[in-house]
Amino acid sequence: MKTAQISVPWLVRMKPGALQRLGLYLARPRLGPVALFHSEGLSQSILDVALQSLQDHSIALALRHEVNEASVEEAVRLLGAVPPSCKALVGVGGGKALDVAKYTASLAGLPYFAVPTSLSNDGFCSPQASLTLEGKRRSLPTGLPEAVIVDLGVCERAPRMLWHSGIGDLSSKFTAVADWTLAFHRRGVAINDLAALISDATVFQFMANPVSDERGIRLLATALMLNGVAMEIAGSSRPASGSEHLISHALDMNGARPRLHGLQTGTAAYLVSSLQRGDHHERIGELFARTGFWESVRKEPFCKEEWRLAVERAPSVKEDFYTILSETDAWPEFARTIAHDSALVGCFE
Amino acid sequence: MKTAQISVPWLVRMKPGALQRLGLYLARPRLGPVALFHSEGLSQSILDVALQSLQDHSIALALRHEVNEASVEEAVRLLGAVPPSCKALVGVGGGKALDVAKYTASLAGLPYFAVPTSLSNDGFCSPQASLTLEGKRRSLPTGLPEAVIVDLGVCERAPRMLWHSGIGDLSSKFTAVADWTLAFHRRGVAINDLAALISDATVFQFMANPVSDERGIRLLATALMLNGVAMEIAGSSRPASGSEHLISHALDMNGARPRLHGLQTGTAAYLVSSLQRGDHHERIGELFARTGFWESVRKEPFCKEEWRLAVERAPSVKEDFYTILSETDAWPEFARTIAHDSALVGCFE
Amino acid sequence: MKTAQISVPWLVRMKPGALQRLGLYLARPRLGPVALFHSEGLSQSILDVALQSLQDHSIALALRHEVNEASVEEAVRLLGAVPPSCKALVGVGGGKALDVAKYTASLAGLPYFAVPTSLSNDGFCSPQASLTLEGKRRSLPTGLPEAVIVDLGVCERAPRMLWHSGIGDLSSKFTAVADWTLAFHRRGVAINDLAALISDATVFQFMANPVSDERGIRLLATALMLNGVAMEIAGSSRPASGSEHLISHALDMNGARPRLHGLQTGTAAYLVSSLQRGDHHERIGELFARTGFWESVRKEPFCKEEWRLAVERAPSVKEDFYTILSETDAWPEFARTIAHDSALVGCFE
Amino acid sequence: MKTAQISVPWLVRMKPGALQRLGLYLARPRLGPVALFHSEGLSQSILDVALQSLQDHSIALALRHEVNEASVEEAVRLLGAVPPSCKALVGVGGGKALDVAKYTASLAGLPYFAVPTSLSNDGFCSPQASLTLEGKRRSLPTGLPEAVIVDLGVCERAPRMLWHSGIGDLSSKFTAVADWTLAFHRRGVAINDLAALISDATVFQFMANPVSDERGIRLLATALMLNGVAMEIAGSSRPASGSEHLISHALDMNGARPRLHGLQTGTAAYLVSSLQRGDHHERIGELFARTGFWESVRKEPFCKEEWRLAVERAPSVKEDFYTILSETDAWPEFARTIAHDSALVGCFE
Repeated sequence: MKTAQISVPWLVRMKPGALQRLGLYLARPRLGPVALFHSEGLSQSILDVALQSLQDHSIALALRHEVNEASVEEAVRLLGAVPPSCKALVGVGGGKALDVAKYTASLAGLPYFAVPTSLSNDGFCSPQASLTLEGKRRSLPTGLPEAVIVDLGVCERAPRMLWHSGIGDLSSKFTAVADWTLAFHRRGVAINDLAALISDATVFQFMANPVSDERGIRLLATALMLNGVAMEIAGSSRPASGSEHLISHALDMNGARPRLHGLQTGTAAYLVSSLQRGDHHERIGELFARTGFWESVRKEPFCKEEWRLAVERAPSVKEDFYTILSETDAWPEFARTIAHDSALVGCFE
Repeated sequence: MKTAQISVPWLVRMKPGALQRLGLYLARPRLGPVALFHSEGLSQSILDVALQSLQDHSIALALRHEVNEASVEEAVRLLGAVPPSCKALVGVGGGKALDVAKYTASLAGLPYFAVPTSLSNDGFCSPQASLTLEGKRRSLPTGLPEAVIVDLGVCERAPRMLWHSGIGDLSSKFTAVADWTLAFHRRGVAINDLAALISDATVFQFMANPVSDERGIRLLATALMLNGVAMEIAGSSRPASGSEHLISHALDMNGARPRLHGLQTGTAAYLVSSLQRGDHHERIGELFARTGFWESVRKEPFCKEEWRLAVERAPSVKEDFYTILSETDAWPEFARTIAHDSALVGCFE
Repeated sequence: MKTAQISVPWLVRMKPGALQRLGLYLARPRLGPVALFHSEGLSQSILDVALQSLQDHSIALALRHEVNEASVEEAVRLLGAVPPSCKALVGVGGGKALDVAKYTASLAGLPYFAVPTSLSNDGFCSPQASLTLEGKRRSLPTGLPEAVIVDLGVCERAPRMLWHSGIGDLSSKFTAVADWTLAFHRRGVAINDLAALISDATVFQFMANPVSDERGIRLLATALMLNGVAMEIAGSSRPASGSEHLISHALDMNGARPRLHGLQTGTAAYLVSSLQRGDHHERIGELFARTGFWESVRKEPFCKEEWRLAVERAPSVKEDFYTILSETDAWPEFARTIAHDSALVGCFE
Repeated sequence: MKTAQISVPWLVRMKPGALQRLGLYLARPRLGPVALFHSEGLSQSILDVALQSLQDHSIALALRHEVNEASVEEAVRLLGAVPPSCKALVGVGGGKALDVAKYTASLAGLPYFAVPTSLSNDGFCSPQASLTLEGKRRSLPTGLPEAVIVDLGVCERAPRMLWHSGIGDLSSKFTAVADWTLAFHRRGVAINDLAALISDATVFQFMANPVSDERGIRLLATALMLNGVAMEIAGSSRPASGSEHLISHALDMNGARPRLHGLQTGTAAYLVSSLQRGDHHERIGELFARTGFWESVRKEPFCKEEWRLAVERAPSVKEDFYTILSETDAWPEFARTIAHDSALVGCFE
């Protein structure tokens, strides 16, 4: 028995203007030339700052690619396109692009620099990539990024709905840890208290200042990043993903109208927490109220029937993954909450 | 450039009654016989629970030792006394005993189980031991414990002053990180943002519920423990120790009347934070007010003259360690605060 | 600066009858169900021993696949076919099947058990997989196997030509290390003396008993395996692959009649070593003479014209990879050796 | 189940004139100032080369110490004497000095550079230090050195008896691995085949050129160094130390006339191997004959009576350590060998 070895990012920079220093962060450890993958529709001005910074520090751009498909097959094609001279892979933008960049870097054995331009979920610093394989969604191991660069100014200016999505993903840590504890008691699933405690800590940290100013953005970024570290310590996604993620996956699989990941998991966490012991339901409710989370949901309400189907399918989405949904017929309770909870008015139709 | 490898505890258990399960935690990985070091004056009833648990799980006790000297020389003597058959070393109690146990385990190459019975400082899960060497206080590298067992019930029943000391030690993370940032800007000292962010997060986490009930105790234990992880990530004590610790060390070196470590560092953090930018001074003040921290200080007020001497000596206590005290003549400002801040009434004499 | 962290196999078993214990090796750490990939045309009796052993130890077989294409695209297809319930991936057979199994395990994040049934090259325990990507051959990072099981009896009974191939691959470590040293002097390529020394050691070890009895097979297996460890320490293929591998790659790329990898690299190493300083040429010659290496070559002689083209192409096969071929027009010298060296009579046509 | 993580030296340099580059090796990673510990009676000219090299590369010497006591107590005193400004600790010389330097570096958490000036045993690159504690000899964990610098010229010019001692220590790997295998079969002691195979490999490697020229010295240094790596992989001294070391320890404990460690373990390995299965006895005999090992023994013959007592005591020297001596009354057989083996004529009296 020894201490457990984990790998954490070598470089973490969170500050306004960090994007302008991207080239510097790559130049110091001599990581050029690089390949840069970015999101479809990423604002040209953000991209220009990144490219200018590479140029300013003489980091050659061996490949630039706009990601429009988040599949293993696409990552493999990109692996073939990355020139052997590349010393690092940089991902700029949001969920899909970062997942593809992270996975391609892992396939190629290259250091990966994550540069999220919004904080809509915890994927920018998690040890897994969420990609489709033969059309089916999969979580694939990648290790944590070597570097995480968060430009607080850029993230502050991102659409408010993405911020709400990040908050939704963060709040689902409460329900994930509760499901993990339940799986430990019911099925003997090994629990890692250190990971669970870090996961929990991150939500409290953000709650200390749940606003979208620079400080709040830094807290949210930190919280989401520490979730990734918790997953690495646990060696599984358990500290960050429980029944609320199953429901979100089921929604995606059922072909429900696509909504932001964190709006789905956040809403599911709010519902699921009402089934779990403790005060998480109240805490999540308070967090969502203070941050205006429900406003983003209301802009395009969920379909109740789609949720009913998803909640029924959720327990079978992931093999051998015990959660509160494994032992409770949840929908009747959820339906009641949806019908009577004043916070949810206008969130479902 | 790769991700950084760190070692974290293999087992972390925080719950009421954890002490009764000590033997089980050792028996599962077959870590017997063991040596057990405990604090001088540790309550017999606590010790009995630990010993009974070992017996219940057939973990032989090869050596039992009451620690009354926290020196390297003593750790070496104990190294000689630990029988070669020992498979692990267990430390039960508070600061000194745990430091000696951790260091002896490191010398012997044995897994170390930390079992704090109060939360008066962050030493129970830090990668260093604070011991004297030839009479001088030193911080010596040990790595993190293999296991951390916190019985929340036992810690909840510990004297309130020890709880206040833990809160004081925790609050000093704010000033430590501010000093680290300053040292980066002034002297180019490498900063690890991940460690700094974790360190910061831990204080916010506790602030969400700064009371001494079971949940509050769990949050404090987690926060102090994550500080240790932050030190391990940083590869230095910078995320947990800055100018406020220099002042506390100087008090100790000057032979001031001995007070609890965390009462010293907490008070110093309150004073130092008034010199640093940001809102840490206000936050620490609020935390101390809510938790009644100053009451424990007032029970045996500090001597103003001793503090004056310590503040003057502090910048030279640690070689090559830049802090706010390296560039500011702090005492006049501190003297003003002591004289006029109503929170400090009765804390100095 | 710290010591470098490397990962080595957790389990290594080399003995006659090891294959019959495969199920036991998986059952102890509870690694079932498993997926098993094997070589095309693997002897049914060998396969039966493996399958029977799984059954004897109640290790369920979730997927069994005969590998007939060594491409990244195929590995990705197999990733889709491996059921989520799988706890480990087992590769049984020779080069291609083991490369595909190792890569698929890496993609899936599953522990990988390498079970070579012959020792024709060092791929069974290297941190890379050699696969095609869009038809082009690539070396892709995988990490070392978690377990290496070598049934000495099975390997002893493998065709003699495969044994010769393993010897050829092993002997190319001499030329690889010499090229590495040259690249250090000419281009400042970082050299890792520990890796180079291990690589060198492995050849000497085998030379102490270069016969195909049980002991010789064990020495060859050990030597090839330590090459993998040397690559892991170096963080590159440099300790195992130099100009002789470039020539072999060029032969493959030029569409020369396919021959066993180690017959190509061994012959190339013999030729290249005549250009390098030191006594490697003589040592390799002696090794090949004692083991009858050239007999296997003579069974299907190489085509001189194909080799001429390959040697000319070799320096440009791998970008930014300095070897003796980068500074020497090697073919005239090779042509002379082929024409006049009595050992090579009948090896080229 | 994961691959096992081990730590290997970051820098290994073996070449003539390496000592003159010591300063350079320290300057590159900016490891100054340093503390330098050296052997008592180390040749002034060797020391001058080291000191000059430090000066040439502007590496300040914060402490220089001549080691004359190999005890934990002394290492602790030296820990107190090493200034906090030190960035690395350098050990120059032979056994004792290197053990004290390695242990002090470990206590201080400083990178350790091992610079052996002879190859009389495998301690220069092992993860343990052999020191006395309260007068009793102990093996204490240290981790491997961060850097190993072997000046082949300096080692070549070391007294021949030291070379013989290194060969003796190396040959004891045969008997150590045989004892380990026996302990596995008799007591279920976990065996690590990778470590055992590396250990075995190192002896064969040296046997390929068992002479004291530059190449032979390099092979011996490599072989001894890889033994250290094997111990690190095994997590114990088993791959390098068996019953032959118990006999040597017993000789030391009995207060026998002190002889070089490797002359004792080598002679013991020769005797012990006659009890073990396999051809190790013959191989060791051949190695000793070719290298003139016995000549160094004959210069000051062992005392037969001291050996008799040591062999009887050996099984109880180390608690819970099964070897061939645990099941065999070895002395009668040894006495016969000593009396009748012509190789041993003049070696005992």
